[in-house]
Amino acid sequence: MAIRRRKISVIGAGFTGSTTALMLAQKELGDVVLVDIPQAEGPTKGKALDMLEASPVQGFDANIIGTSNYEDTKDSDVVIITAGMARKPGMSRDDLVNINAGIVRSVTENVVKYSPNCIIIVLTNPVDAMTYEVYRTSGFPKNRVIGQSGVLDTARFRTFVAQELNVSVEDVTGFVLGGHGDDMVPLVRYSYAGGIPLEKLIPAERLEAIVERTRKGGGEIVGLLGNGSAYYAPAASLVQMAEAILKDKKRILPAVAYLEGEYGYNDLYLGVPTILGGNGLEKVIVLELTDEEKKALDKSAESVRKVMKVLN
Amino acid sequence: MAIRRRKISVIGAGFTGSTTALMLAQKELGDVVLVDIPQAEGPTKGKALDMLEASPVQGFDANIIGTSNYEDTKDSDVVIITAGMARKPGMSRDDLVNINAGIVRSVTENVVKYSPNCIIIVLTNPVDAMTYEVYRTSGFPKNRVIGQSGVLDTARFRTFVAQELNVSVEDVTGFVLGGHGDDMVPLVRYSYAGGIPLEKLIPAERLEAIVERTRKGGGEIVGLLGNGSAYYAPAASLVQMAEAILKDKKRILPAVAYLEGEYGYNDLYLGVPTILGGNGLEKVIVLELTDEEKKALDKSAESVRKVMKVLN
Amino acid sequence: MAIRRRKISVIGAGFTGSTTALMLAQKELGDVVLVDIPQAEGPTKGKALDMLEASPVQGFDANIIGTSNYEDTKDSDVVIITAGMARKPGMSRDDLVNINAGIVRSVTENVVKYSPNCIIIVLTNPVDAMTYEVYRTSGFPKNRVIGQSGVLDTARFRTFVAQELNVSVEDVTGFVLGGHGDDMVPLVRYSYAGGIPLEKLIPAERLEAIVERTRKGGGEIVGLLGNGSAYYAPAASLVQMAEAILKDKKRILPAVAYLEGEYGYNDLYLGVPTILGGNGLEKVIVLELTDEEKKALDKSAESVRKVMKVLN
Amino acid sequence: MAIRRRKISVIGAGFTGSTTALMLAQKELGDVVLVDIPQAEGPTKGKALDMLEASPVQGFDANIIGTSNYEDTKDSDVVIITAGMARKPGMSRDDLVNINAGIVRSVTENVVKYSPNCIIIVLTNPVDAMTYEVYRTSGFPKNRVIGQSGVLDTARFRTFVAQELNVSVEDVTGFVLGGHGDDMVPLVRYSYAGGIPLEKLIPAERLEAIVERTRKGGGEIVGLLGNGSAYYAPAASLVQMAEAILKDKKRILPAVAYLEGEYGYNDLYLGVPTILGGNGLEKVIVLELTDEEKKALDKSAESVRKVMKVLN
Repeated sequence: MAIRRRKISVIGAGFTGSTTALMLAQKELGDVVLVDIPQAEGPTKGKALDMLEASPVQGFDANIIGTSNYEDTKDSDVVIITAGMARKPGMSRDDLVNINAGIVRSVTENVVKYSPNCIIIVLTNPVDAMTYEVYRTSGFPKNRVIGQSGVLDTARFRTFVAQELNVSVEDVTGFVLGGHGDDMVPLVRYSYAGGIPLEKLIPAERLEAIVERTRKGGGEIVGLLGNGSAYYAPAASLVQMAEAILKDKKRILPAVAYLEGEYGYNDLYLGVPTILGGNGLEKVIVLELTDEEKKALDKSAESVRKVMKVLN
Repeated sequence: MAIRRRKISVIGAGFTGSTTALMLAQKELGDVVLVDIPQAEGPTKGKALDMLEASPVQGFDANIIGTSNYEDTKDSDVVIITAGMARKPGMSRDDLVNINAGIVRSVTENVVKYSPNCIIIVLTNPVDAMTYEVYRTSGFPKNRVIGQSGVLDTARFRTFVAQELNVSVEDVTGFVLGGHGDDMVPLVRYSYAGGIPLEKLIPAERLEAIVERTRKGGGEIVGLLGNGSAYYAPAASLVQMAEAILKDKKRILPAVAYLEGEYGYNDLYLGVPTILGGNGLEKVIVLELTDEEKKALDKSAESVRKVMKVLN
Repeated sequence: MAIRRRKISVIGAGFTGSTTALMLAQKELGDVVLVDIPQAEGPTKGKALDMLEASPVQGFDANIIGTSNYEDTKDSDVVIITAGMARKPGMSRDDLVNINAGIVRSVTENVVKYSPNCIIIVLTNPVDAMTYEVYRTSGFPKNRVIGQSGVLDTARFRTFVAQELNVSVEDVTGFVLGGHGDDMVPLVRYSYAGGIPLEKLIPAERLEAIVERTRKGGGEIVGLLGNGSAYYAPAASLVQMAEAILKDKKRILPAVAYLEGEYGYNDLYLGVPTILGGNGLEKVIVLELTDEEKKALDKSAESVRKVMKVLN
Repeated sequence: MAIRRRKISVIGAGFTGSTTALMLAQKELGDVVLVDIPQAEGPTKGKALDMLEASPVQGFDANIIGTSNYEDTKDSDVVIITAGMARKPGMSRDDLVNINAGIVRSVTENVVKYSPNCIIIVLTNPVDAMTYEVYRTSGFPKNRVIGQSGVLDTARFRTFVAQELNVSVEDVTGFVLGGHGDDMVPLVRYSYAGGIPLEKLIPAERLEAIVERTRKGGGEIVGLLGNGSAYYAPAASLVQMAEAILKDKKRILPAVAYLEGEYGYNDLYLGVPTILGGNGLEKVIVLELTDEEKKALDKSAESVRKVMKVLN
């Protein structure tokens, strides 16, 4: 009968996972369990303790623990999967897909065992295929398995547009469909600054350059860092989705959703506009597309199916 | 005449520096310039861009740039120095002191050149000696050169006490004097939960164990991480001090302050209770100490002087 | 299985009730139902709608409705009772007690009918007696019926001390026992600025003047307003208690608690230090008192009993 | 050289003025001076003190004072004018205009005397004419005199749309031009939910009903309250504009701006999309309008000119 704090588990304690844990705790969305493999238990515990020690200063109450034991994730409301490998030299793209699929399958089995009612958000790349893999492994209904890609892509787009116009990021919106990165289908006609279509504010070629930069946004960070990939904006994106669910906010956010006929696809996870709330992915919003947009989306869907075929 | 956003520069783009930059931006305390050496310019720019791309999602407006050019720090209101080396195998403690002193001197010259009116907060270890070095190099008045140590030490203490009592971290306070870590002089009689002296709530031996754990709090994280040291709680501590200054909050916080007679010391930087506001370190608060406390503080001061003697 | 937003009902839509509703919504603690009598239904709905219309601008998601129908409060997690009358010319103090007791009894019956598992926080004056009345009427266990008085009294005290010392309100704490206002038993020895006992920072007579001003703090506002009494600080106080419960924060806060032997009293509601969390009032913290303090508390308890005797 | 807290004065201590003061302080945007006429000095001081006493609980540092002496507003960064009379029975609309014009002229003279460099935001109705009056009286450049109307109108619109679609208010935007209320020119084609034009999500007649309800949104609240008009949403709107300026956010917000040729008007204050930042109203954004929209805007402009003619 007592009011219980929400509980969120973050699987994968790398930079993205740990930054996600921090941001969840800063917002007091619930207690946080940061999970990684037994070999990484020390650093996982160290990061969790370090951020817990920030709590008196930042003024948030949240238990944050690091662990390699899934039992600690028991009865999580939301589970965020960031675990996965980055491509290494000499590794084929297909190899990577199978390795990460193995990781998310194993993670999912453990997650489901201890939190059979949770809602899962997946970040592991390639995200559309990996979200499908989690869906298949979990046996969860589709509303409880969701992937992240569009929040991050639009965040990058919004950042570049805000810089271009020298206006607040809060007043710029973006809109994408389809896969992450190169497969992204930007709908510039649904993107605005202060409600004004960007096409009226930014010359076509500049806007095209911004779209192109967004597409390659992950690679830009990888190139600068030299070693590793982005984690601040990915973590913020995951936390926004988790917050929408945990506070039942009914946010309209792009998400990787299971499609059953929407946009003409079946049995496929793909990035589309959705409503996120207390039931997880509560609705896929279907838009009319131009022929050109539909063609681009088909290409994106094809690309996801190709990855999925690699999986056995 | 226009209202200008505050500007904060963070020197050193390692984990602590970059986490500090993120937290400053999240609180919209001003625009943030993250600075590191030319060799690290790529990662510095990458981290800055990544956190900028989190801004539309988290809803903050702050320019965040990464650079190795001090000209970009021009007219900063506050500068936070996190640059410095961690001790490496085979390096003597004295070697480390001289290396870090060289770093902070060089940093300080550059900082002062472009922001002659800024307030500097120093994190580089050994922090008491390094803050003195910044003070000496900058030629700034003492109120504008401040070191961080006590906010972090008390944050750890508060965390452990809150866990012990199973109460909110917001209701636990701690109090330390003197140096960081081993040299820390905890004043448990000035530490409370909900205003109640901890000595009335926690058995003496448990309290002693907590004090001891706090003393070794940095080492505990180092041990767990295996590679590297704490950064979340140190960053939060720096940001709290910066916020007190940038918002002229007149917060009563422990800080490494230049002493001119207070507590019986002269020409020495040491951790004491202070008031932080728009003028930087506005006041050192002097407490009566018991003989035992004074003796411990003397030892701490001696320890700082020993480090300072190493410097040439 | 879906994650459900918390629900808080505020009974009484006067200035305090409506400000409470606003602050609950600003913090996204849950959906808010503002309730008043049928004759005040228009203004109740108007205030609720007005604050709902502030939500897109302030960026919070919370349904806020105004109603006179208790059915709308169904399944509230927390209910805050602010309903009650202010003393009018010609009305005896005893008359007032009986009128307000009648109000809270009727309110409580309705609340309990629709939210049998809620936690109730009472503000209606005289608060100790009224909280008892709610307890008796509700049949709830003692942990689920709590009164507000000490958070507000210490807030005033902290404000005056912060002004006196010109320091941040965040670094000043206060401590009271016993009844509200005149019956307040301040424990100045448990009150601090930056952890330093106030007695070391403020001359005795100034401190005594501050205590006296705190005691009469409600009257000071009444005198200034000319018509009506304080509502901003009372609302903030209620919301802090509600937040502690709704987020299971285990905050150490003064509250009007049911005593069964603590401090030597039985079957009495009185202001004492407590722990507030997901179970409501989870613990009464018992302090050793000096003879003088115990005597003052006895007087305060006596005062509450006198009021209770008026009730039939 | 010290960092000085920002200072904001709010003229008029009625419900809107005092709620504005509270929200400014909650956001720690600066110190707040709440001003009203000498006859209302008691309540003005009472409200200021009451909200100051909420600060330790809500955790904000801001001096808040109530006064009738304009000297206390000296060197304000931003001044918000809410002073003015509501229409009383038997009073003609023209009488009201002249009475409020007299009030804002007198207020402006006092404001300018003590804060010659401030930025002024006007709420007093009829807001377009009153903002013009402040502009004329102050002798300030146009960027430093701004009126509020569109933020509130769109807030109401967004609220109704969010309810209609059962989605988060954060994901709904609205767009208006022209005068407040009845004269409002809604640009529904620039209004979205999650970036999707509302026309695709809501049937035309429902959308028309929402527009109509928005137009009469002020009256709806007046009708419900029975006595007085809206203050929560108006206050939030003023604070959003002030925040954009005080933090130099470059927000794209609708505001009542002085036009010199934009949209074909000269020497007129009218509601248009603008950029608000550290220089106040930094830019008027000019959109192409359809003939119908232009006609509606002409009517709105005509309406403002009619009111201005009443002024002598």
